[in-house]
Amino acid sequence: MSDASQILKDFETQYVPQINQTLQRLNDGWIDQPILQSAMTYSVNAGGKRLRPLLTLAVLRTYHDQPTDGQLMAASALELLHTYSLIHDDLPAMDNDPLRRGVPTNHMKFGAGMATLAGDGLLTLAFEWLSKAAIPDAQQLALVRALSHAAGPAGMDAGQAQDISSEHLQLNIDQLADLHRHKTGALLHYAVEAGCIMAEVSTEERQGLLKFADQFGLAYQIYDDLLDVTATTEELGKKTHKDADEEKNTYPGLFGVAGTKKRLKQVVTDAEAQLVALNHATGRDFSLLNAFCSYFKIKE
Amino acid sequence: MSDASQILKDFETQYVPQINQTLQRLNDGWIDQPILQSAMTYSVNAGGKRLRPLLTLAVLRTYHDQPTDGQLMAASALELLHTYSLIHDDLPAMDNDPLRRGVPTNHMKFGAGMATLAGDGLLTLAFEWLSKAAIPDAQQLALVRALSHAAGPAGMDAGQAQDISSEHLQLNIDQLADLHRHKTGALLHYAVEAGCIMAEVSTEERQGLLKFADQFGLAYQIYDDLLDVTATTEELGKKTHKDADEEKNTYPGLFGVAGTKKRLKQVVTDAEAQLVALNHATGRDFSLLNAFCSYFKIKE
Repeated sequence: MSDASQILKDFETQYVPQINQTLQRLNDGWIDQPILQSAMTYSVNAGGKRLRPLLTLAVLRTYHDQPTDGQLMAASALELLHTYSLIHDDLPAMDNDPLRRGVPTNHMKFGAGMATLAGDGLLTLAFEWLSKAAIPDAQQLALVRALSHAAGPAGMDAGQAQDISSEHLQLNIDQLADLHRHKTGALLHYAVEAGCIMAEVSTEERQGLLKFADQFGLAYQIYDDLLDVTATTEELGKKTHKDADEEKNTYPGLFGVAGTKKRLKQVVTDAEAQLVALNHATGRDFSLLNAFCSYFKIKE
Repeated sequence: MSDASQILKDFETQYVPQINQTLQRLNDGWIDQPILQSAMTYSVNAGGKRLRPLLTLAVLRTYHDQPTDGQLMAASALELLHTYSLIHDDLPAMDNDPLRRGVPTNHMKFGAGMATLAGDGLLTLAFEWLSKAAIPDAQQLALVRALSHAAGPAGMDAGQAQDISSEHLQLNIDQLADLHRHKTGALLHYAVEAGCIMAEVSTEERQGLLKFADQFGLAYQIYDDLLDVTATTEELGKKTHKDADEEKNTYPGLFGVAGTKKRLKQVVTDAEAQLVALNHATGRDFSLLNAFCSYFKIKE
């Protein structure tokens, strides 16, 4: 295992349990209806790498000591929002996916109506958590502004709309990059931004970290496309080869598997170089964020 | 026309156009995708009484002069959120309604996938508008806290879940009141609360106004149930007699039409008496809020 892989693994071992414990606050009177509560907690507890809150916490750890309870809650709000996006994305009216993270999707278990409401509830609750987490008021407000923009119709929501509008259409590389910048990139951008807001990172350094976030987000989407082609359903815990079946626009569709792997390597190299440049400019140690690039394991 | 009806009509004549003009800010770069934009603006522009933002503005007008642009935007954010709730409520997976406000529902026009995303976008954008409206930061944050609570899984979202969970079950009067308190009452409560927050109404007076809001909300739901039984599709612009067909729990189902009218009169009388009591306690003129009770026109 490389140093970077080990650093990421250690970080996950330390913080994934803390994120999961924070998410159990779903049971602290935030939900007034038992079936809705079951539906919401079902998907939040259905596994997941907790990548987005981990990214936020990694920025915080780069600048500070252990995150506070309030910071953990604010970071975990993003996992609520991410879970909403998966539930709605899987709906029969959207991607119509029966399986997610190795278990039946929310609507397979609770019906499409309750799944819609569970997603709506998680989206709304994310803003309640941000606005009530034990962090300074100014940070709460900055997080609400940033997340509503990232998740809304100028961000992730627009990406989902582009995605379903462009099925059966052939996008070019710029259009595909634009789709992914919205659909996947926006929330990963926010994950890093949220860390910068809570760590009160200077404007200049923040610009550099957000540039890294955008490269990381692009790599993430390319890697996801690649896994859909190369992995099995058992490995991923969700249906694979779906993209091609549904004529979705993907990198392998545009560049082939070998070309996509080459492109992914280049984007990851760019992301790492961005952190090296930041280290040279500030003298700060960015090895924890750099370790996140080991997430992309490319088999030759 | 009674004095109260005339006051309400004059208020609508003055402020509905201002709310509608504020809602046109949907076109100011908040939405990055043309079909999503069409779907979102279609439902926002499909009419509607603008009752919720009007209530917020009525509280503001009771305490202050003309509302500012920032206050209009914050008040109109609630209409975005209300529109989201209607779009999702109408979805095939929920109530499966083809008609709303006399025109095809969002999913009939744009498909259920895009309608889901249009609703998601309006919900998220409501929080972006609140957090960016030109009002003090402390008010933005108080509005986000209040709206996320009112609309989320301890409020409206829970009410929707109760509603679909209790179809074909016979609720008693307490259970029905609880359902309505969540489903309809929470947003009307927030509408008055938002006015109190922006007018910086004292805690004691705020409690009194919120009590009025809750009685108004209960009257609103009883009236809505009554219209479903007594009005025609043409009058309402949506399918009527649906509740009975779908074995929804309603007041006429529990008390009959005559009993429901009697109950409505009592609740409206209570709401009006609450404002009289507030007037006696404070010397303030609440005739504008009182005029909203003329909304409930009960044919004998």
